[in-house]
Amino acid sequence: MHASPLRVIVIGGVAGGMSAATRLRRLNETALITVLERGPYVSFANCGLPYHLSGTVGRDDLLLHTPDSLQARFNLDARVHHEALQIDRAARTVTGRQTLTGEPFTLPYDRLILSPGAHAVRPPIPGIERAFPLRTVPDLDRLKAAVDTAGPHVVVIGAGFIGVEAAENLRAAGRHVTLLEAGPQVLPPLDPELAALVHQELDRQGVHVATGAAVTRVTDTHVHLHSGACLPADVVVLAAGVRPSDQLARDAGLDVATGGGILVNDHLQTSDPLIYAVGDAILTRDALDQPAFVPLAWGANRQGRVAADHLMGRPASYGPHPATAIARIFTLTAGSTGLNERQVRAAGLTPTVIHTHPASHAGYYPGAQGLHLKLVFDAATGRIYGAQAVGGDGTDKRLDVLATALHAGVRADDLADLPLAYAPPYGSAKDPVNMLGYVAQNVMDGLTRPLQWHEALSSGRQLIDVRSADEYRRGHLPGAVNIPLDTLREQAPHLAPRVLVYCQVGQRGHTAALLLNQLGVDACTLSGGYLTWQAGQASLTPAAHP
Amino acid sequence: MHASPLRVIVIGGVAGGMSAATRLRRLNETALITVLERGPYVSFANCGLPYHLSGTVGRDDLLLHTPDSLQARFNLDARVHHEALQIDRAARTVTGRQTLTGEPFTLPYDRLILSPGAHAVRPPIPGIERAFPLRTVPDLDRLKAAVDTAGPHVVVIGAGFIGVEAAENLRAAGRHVTLLEAGPQVLPPLDPELAALVHQELDRQGVHVATGAAVTRVTDTHVHLHSGACLPADVVVLAAGVRPSDQLARDAGLDVATGGGILVNDHLQTSDPLIYAVGDAILTRDALDQPAFVPLAWGANRQGRVAADHLMGRPASYGPHPATAIARIFTLTAGSTGLNERQVRAAGLTPTVIHTHPASHAGYYPGAQGLHLKLVFDAATGRIYGAQAVGGDGTDKRLDVLATALHAGVRADDLADLPLAYAPPYGSAKDPVNMLGYVAQNVMDGLTRPLQWHEALSSGRQLIDVRSADEYRRGHLPGAVNIPLDTLREQAPHLAPRVLVYCQVGQRGHTAALLLNQLGVDACTLSGGYLTWQAGQASLTPAAHP
Ligand SMILES: Cc1cc2nc3c(=O)[nH]c(=O)nc-3n(C[C@H](O)[C@H](O)[C@H](O)COP(=O)(O)OP(=O)(O)OC[C@H]3O[C@@H](n4cnc5c(N)ncnc54)[C@H](O)[C@@H]3O)c2cc1C
Ligand SMILES: Cc1cc2nc3c(=O)[nH]c(=O)nc-3n(C[C@H](O)[C@H](O)[C@H](O)COP(=O)(O)OP(=O)(O)OC[C@H]3O[C@@H](n4cnc5c(N)ncnc54)[C@H](O)[C@@H]3O)c2cc1C
Ligand SMILES: CC(C)(COP(=O)(O)OP(=O)(O)OC[C@H]1O[C@@H](n2cnc3c(N)ncnc32)[C@H](O)[C@@H]1OP(=O)(O)O)[C@@H](O)C(=O)NCCC(=O)NCCS
Ligand SMILES: CC(C)(COP(=O)(O)OP(=O)(O)OC[C@H]1O[C@@H](n2cnc3c(N)ncnc32)[C@H](O)[C@@H]1OP(=O)(O)O)[C@@H](O)C(=O)NCCC(=O)NCCS
Repeated sequence: MHASPLRVIVIGGVAGGMSAATRLRRLNETALITVLERGPYVSFANCGLPYHLSGTVGRDDLLLHTPDSLQARFNLDARVHHEALQIDRAARTVTGRQTLTGEPFTLPYDRLILSPGAHAVRPPIPGIERAFPLRTVPDLDRLKAAVDTAGPHVVVIGAGFIGVEAAENLRAAGRHVTLLEAGPQVLPPLDPELAALVHQELDRQGVHVATGAAVTRVTDTHVHLHSGACLPADVVVLAAGVRPSDQLARDAGLDVATGGGILVNDHLQTSDPLIYAVGDAILTRDALDQPAFVPLAWGANRQGRVAADHLMGRPASYGPHPATAIARIFTLTAGSTGLNERQVRAAGLTPTVIHTHPASHAGYYPGAQGLHLKLVFDAATGRIYGAQAVGGDGTDKRLDVLATALHAGVRADDLADLPLAYAPPYGSAKDPVNMLGYVAQNVMDGLTRPLQWHEALSSGRQLIDVRSADEYRRGHLPGAVNIPLDTLREQAPHLAPRVLVYCQVGQRGHTAALLLNQLGVDACTLSGGYLTWQAGQASLTPAAHP
Repeated sequence: MHASPLRVIVIGGVAGGMSAATRLRRLNETALITVLERGPYVSFANCGLPYHLSGTVGRDDLLLHTPDSLQARFNLDARVHHEALQIDRAARTVTGRQTLTGEPFTLPYDRLILSPGAHAVRPPIPGIERAFPLRTVPDLDRLKAAVDTAGPHVVVIGAGFIGVEAAENLRAAGRHVTLLEAGPQVLPPLDPELAALVHQELDRQGVHVATGAAVTRVTDTHVHLHSGACLPADVVVLAAGVRPSDQLARDAGLDVATGGGILVNDHLQTSDPLIYAVGDAILTRDALDQPAFVPLAWGANRQGRVAADHLMGRPASYGPHPATAIARIFTLTAGSTGLNERQVRAAGLTPTVIHTHPASHAGYYPGAQGLHLKLVFDAATGRIYGAQAVGGDGTDKRLDVLATALHAGVRADDLADLPLAYAPPYGSAKDPVNMLGYVAQNVMDGLTRPLQWHEALSSGRQLIDVRSADEYRRGHLPGAVNIPLDTLREQAPHLAPRVLVYCQVGQRGHTAALLLNQLGVDACTLSGGYLTWQAGQASLTPAAHP
């Protein structure tokens, strides 16, 4: 009577894999859906793992489903301790073994969905075996047991999002934490002058951060650096980046990028149309339509659903997406969407950059916190390449609005037109995102010519600080003269013909420059003012090596 | 040598007027810019006025600029106590009087910008003269003096945003507050089932709210209602709506809408191209391109800048915009963007509606708060008409993302694709806005057929509550049988042929309905589940009259 039921195997039972399996079930009640998960848990909250180190999140709360609950609700056959070892595409089978018993299995499929995730990079450093990665619940259990029983000194290798989150939570748990980063800055998705703000916050909160810190050796008690320094390390955390887990796909002869990552089409099919792949194991495309490795949960969840839909004959696809990442670092929130300045330049483009430092909400309403925004765009077309945000309350909101605008193709100057909600506790009548639009518009129209922090001292222009005498006294650019904005008109005739005006954040500098330009002085502004300049300087200062 | 400087007069020296004046100055250093302001203050924070009633915002903090500071910084001639009384378009003059001395003045202009704002509606009720409006700093001073010296009973007439904010702050100041609304609900920009949540919060916080409460008489000590009730009222606040202040324009023969509001083109020029008008005094166009009266600060600020730009020959315009409004109500945030269901129906369209009740961030991370979202869209095209949000932390973020999406023309189903930032303290791997996209997509694809709360009991379908036995016991739809989702497969053969499945928020109901439909049962879901149904019921219960 009926055709025999569709047999689907999903490899990897967490974000991408389980999202695919549940959606598949909703679309097809009769399919035989088997989920193979190597580890002891399915559907756990990877992103919550670091927060258990501080006790913020309970261990049980990390487990969102069990094979039993998935069976009851979705009639899924979710098999933990089942590792897939080989795909036979001709025979349409997956072969593997039960990891506890060693028992082999072979399962036939009509369709296969790969969501094996990524694995921690373990750099070839003597002694690195002792370092704990943090990818799974067993990883967490091992790390936590070590932290709970060993001495107080923890060294975290790698200052990406996961390393920074681990450092924060271990510090909250009272440990002496050193965060080592081989690269020049923390949080590589940010540009250096924004990363510097995060670095400062880590310092303030008692996390010892060292950038440009190459680990040469890990001993039973210490971590040795190329600088010769040697850090006590009762526990070492490995967070030096991740790589797509593409070996299974590679072995099966599926197309895989040379640098790693399963290649898929817009429907998330691999080079074998019966096999889909999603999540951290694949390459997707960024907003410039370049290949991108984005090991984040949003994509894994989204792609799992798209794959399930397409597998069931629905017209689903996953096109180019800006990547949006965020993390909390103690009192700060830091995140980015799309490409940063470095990435845009690496793509051979010449972006325009603006910095602002608005308040999270109307200044007259209590509790406003400082935000630091950076917009990277093309001044000729208005196309937004990316944005970054660091700050207090409301940082995540601005980042999400910018991610939405970027994805929807809103132009930089049209950010001024977004009808954002305003009441005093939430924002300003010109929201910080609108203000980015105003500033961008002024640049696009040629009304203002902002120099960047790293161009200020070499601009050959007279430096004019238009802040108050008090602000100037507390710190200023070397060589700058102080002419408060409200007295600038009368001083205009006495200025050099070419000047750079700056204030604290860029706003008074803007008014100053427009005024001077009309009075016959060639005036540029300093994007983001003294605050961005300071942060930029901080990003240049090599971190004191431990 | 030079042409004589451009003479610009701005009428109204606050949000729209002063935004125009400052931008104008930045674009034109030589123009003679005169700002006429009837009241004693310019550039004050209207939106902060209610918060001074509780002492949250200091009185001085409300004053962002003075004529002196505007003179120093922007070389503006800002004249307080100067009321414009007449525009002579032929002579290009504005005539008025100094309000303290009564001295008349006449000033010539080349261009004129009107930003006279709106004024409080004073319904023709005997004794209403005693009610205090809250539009300006002198209004605030009078109201505050009364509140500080009179007895504890305050009656606020009108439960729009300003009335609700006034009620909140007076309650925080320890007053006995009654909030009266002639219409059927608080906060008219919301649909009733969302307004009910705000109503409940006001109740919980000790504000006595009465809807459908028509005031018939105000005496020296009481407020009398049509119901016969009589409320002690030591102080009465007038917040029964506002009207565009368009008399000056009307008298000058400019085009004004019959129902009120100066008419302008896309460049914000009135029917006299030398005269611009912005802010609360004008009509703009909503997202359906219908005339709209949007007395909010965002528009006034934006329009002020557009008018200044266009006046200076720049290609600026102000097209159709969704209105976005927000307010804090004690622990809740409530807001809307675009049109609500009522407005869409009034425009002759048949919208599709979905409700969700997500958590502000990942459920496993502490501190997640409940949100209530409503999306109003066209199921055939995916066009979003509007959205509403009520809830705790993160409500304003989702509203701004939705406002951005709406303005950028993102389709309802494409909300699933917005690359929103996820880390446990901020959101979920499928953000609430993404989830709206998923739910919308299911409706657009015909996968689910959600009924609305008001259709549930009359649907003629068997009502099936798929929540746990415990949840069912705490309250359910009349006549519903309880079949927890995880046991539904086995019960499917015993169900009526046509059923309505529901859960707490709609999510389990969705899985249930897809499952049943494939097992041969015709199943609809209940949008927003039991929570929306409950809120809908609450919106029907006439508020206990005082
Ligand atoms: C500590 C940590 C914090 C994070 N924080 C965030 C965050 O805040 N925000 C964010 O967006 N993202 C975060 N991520 C990333 C996010 O968790 C991943 O992007 C997402 O889980 C990827 O989904 P996936 O399905 O591709 O892989 P995973 O969710 O990792 O699932 C892959 C599963 O496949 C299994 N598997 C692999 N190979 C086999 C095989 N051969 N046979 C059987 N099973 C196999 C693995 O055991 C694993 O359980 C974090 C990740 C970690 C580790
Ligand atoms: C209590 C309160 C709370 C508010 N809260 C919010 C909020 O949270 N969010 C939000 O978006 N909006 C809010 N608003 C609305 C917002 O303040 C207005 O939309 C905005 O100020 C309108 O700007 P405008 O320039 O049109 O008018 P206004 O800012 O009101 O300025 C108009 C000025 O023109 C002057 N004027 C009028 N006629 C003449 C004349 N003939 N001659 C000289 N001067 C004249 C008036 O004295 C007045 O000062 C609130 C308003 C009030 C009163
Ligand atoms: C949770 C998990 C099992 C997926 O389950 P799921 O049921 O597909 O997903 P959710 O629980 O998010 O529910 C989404 C579904 O409910 C629907 N839904 C949600 N709220 C709804 C509402 N109020 N009304 C109607 N439907 C609703 C959505 O439309 C969606 O269904 P669809 O895909 O058929 O459109 C899987 O994502 C997982 O294992 N996650 C844990 C791992 C992980 O994500 N890690 C990274 C982050 S820590
Ligand atoms: C404040 C007020 C006087 C306007 O002054 P303004 O200088 O035009 O506006 P802001 O202070 O917001 O500054 C905006 C300007 O600074 C620029 N700017 C802001 N931050 C900047 C930065 N970091 N770098 C460069 N430029 C910046 C903007 O581009 C804009 O200039 P532009 O219009 O030439 O593009 C007027 O809006 C007002 O009186 N407001 C009070 C009343 C009110 O708004 N009430 C309702 C809400 S409570």
